[in-house]
Amino acid sequence: AIAEAVMARLDPAARPLAGKRAIVTSGPTHEPIDPVRYIANRSSGKQGHAIAAALAAAGAEVTLVTGPTREPDPAGVTVKHIETAREMLAGVEAALPADIAVFAAAVADWRVAEEAGQKLKKDGSGQIPSLSMTENPDILKTVSGLGGTRPSLVVGFAAETEMVVAHATEKRARKGCDWILANDVSPATGTFGGEANTIHLITGAGSEDWPKLTKKEVAEKLATRIVEHFSA
Amino acid sequence: AIAEAVMARLDPAARPLAGKRAIVTSGPTHEPIDPVRYIANRSSGKQGHAIAAALAAAGAEVTLVTGPTREPDPAGVTVKHIETAREMLAGVEAALPADIAVFAAAVADWRVAEEAGQKLKKDGSGQIPSLSMTENPDILKTVSGLGGTRPSLVVGFAAETEMVVAHATEKRARKGCDWILANDVSPATGTFGGEANTIHLITGAGSEDWPKLTKKEVAEKLATRIVEHFSA
Repeated sequence: AIAEAVMARLDPAARPLAGKRAIVTSGPTHEPIDPVRYIANRSSGKQGHAIAAALAAAGAEVTLVTGPTREPDPAGVTVKHIETAREMLAGVEAALPADIAVFAAAVADWRVAEEAGQKLKKDGSGQIPSLSMTENPDILKTVSGLGGTRPSLVVGFAAETEMVVAHATEKRARKGCDWILANDVSPATGTFGGEANTIHLITGAGSEDWPKLTKKEVAEKLATRIVEHFSA
Repeated sequence: AIAEAVMARLDPAARPLAGKRAIVTSGPTHEPIDPVRYIANRSSGKQGHAIAAALAAAGAEVTLVTGPTREPDPAGVTVKHIETAREMLAGVEAALPADIAVFAAAVADWRVAEEAGQKLKKDGSGQIPSLSMTENPDILKTVSGLGGTRPSLVVGFAAETEMVVAHATEKRARKGCDWILANDVSPATGTFGGEANTIHLITGAGSEDWPKLTKKEVAEKLATRIVEHFSA
C-alpha cells in the first residue's frame, strides 16, 4: 500500500496539476474599528481550506492566504495568515505568478474609513457614533484585470441570500473572472460555519447546478473541473 | 486524598460562598450588521470564565452568561450562551436574584441601528455605506441601579487604553457599581487573548494596584476579596 501510494504520487496521471501554481484565499477578514473592536463575518474557512487541500492533492503548488479561522493549516500547502482585506491582497500579489486563483475568502467589502488609535468611548454626551466606511480593495476584480501576470483561470465565489444565479452571473461579468461558484448563504441554509454547500457553477457557457455536497466534496469537484479545464 | 477533597467540599470554611448566588458575564458580544457580517471585539472570555470557576470553587451557585468564545464551559457552573448585548442583558435578568454580579464581558457599547435583512452589497454606484449606530443596553449600569433585586455586590470591568485608574474611577461613579477591576488593554500589553492581566481594583476606599497575574490568579484573588467582603 505504501509503494502504491508512492507510485501514485510519482504517476503523472495521479498528479494532473503537477507544475501548476495555485493561489487560494479562505476565511473571513477582520477590519479594525479601534484597538479592541472589529468588523467580521461568519465565514469559517472550511471551503477555502478544503479547496487548497484538494488542489495540493492534485499536484499543484498551492499558496493559501487566509484570515482568522479555527481550521488547521492544510498539509503540503504554503499558508499565509492575514487579518484585513488589504493584507489579503498583498499576500495574493506576493504569491503571483500563478496558473490558478480561487478566491473563496469572505473578504469585507468595506472597512472603517479611519481606524481610531484609542478605544472609542461613550462620553455621556448622548452622541451616537456613525462609522464612515470606505471600500476595501476588490481582490477578485483586481486579479481578474491583471495583464501579463493574470492567472489563466480565476475563480470567484458569490455568497448570496436571494436570486443566487442571477446575482452571480452578473457578478462574473462585472469582475471579469472566469468562473463563479455561487452559494446560498441565507441563515436557513446553515452554509456559514456548516459542513455542506449547495453550489451553482457559473462559467462562460452558462450555469450548472451541483447537488448539495459537503465542503470537501465541493473542493474535490472543483479540483476535478480545474483538471479538465487544463486538459481540454 | 479523595476523602480530603470530599471533606473540603463539605467543610463550610472551604466553601465560604456556599448559599450565595453569583452571576458572571464573559466574552465578547457579536452585533449583527446583516445576515453575514457583525461587529465583534477581541475578548477571549478567559477572564470571565476563570472568575465563574473561582466563585463556584468557593461554593457559590454560579450562572455564567457568555458570548461566543473558544473557552470550554466551566464545570459546576450553569452556562447560558448568547451573541448580542441585548441577549446578554436578558440572560442576566433571568438569573436574578443574586448576591454577587461580576460583569467581565466586553459588551459592545453600540449596535447597528437597523440590521439589514439581506446582505449589504456593493451596487456599483460608488456610494459608500455609513453604519448608523445605536446604544446597546448598559448591563452594568442597569443592574447597579436596580431596586430590591440589586445584587449586594456589583463588580464591573474597565478595559482602558490610556489613563487607566482615572478613567475607571470615573466609570465606577457613573455606573453606580461597587467595584471596578480596571485593566490596560492597549495592544502592547497583550491582555486581549493573552494569559495575563495587570489589574487596578477601584472601590469606595480608593484604588489598589495588583501585580501582573495570570487571569486564573486574578480570578482567585477576586474570589478571595469577595469572600472577605461578605465576612466583614
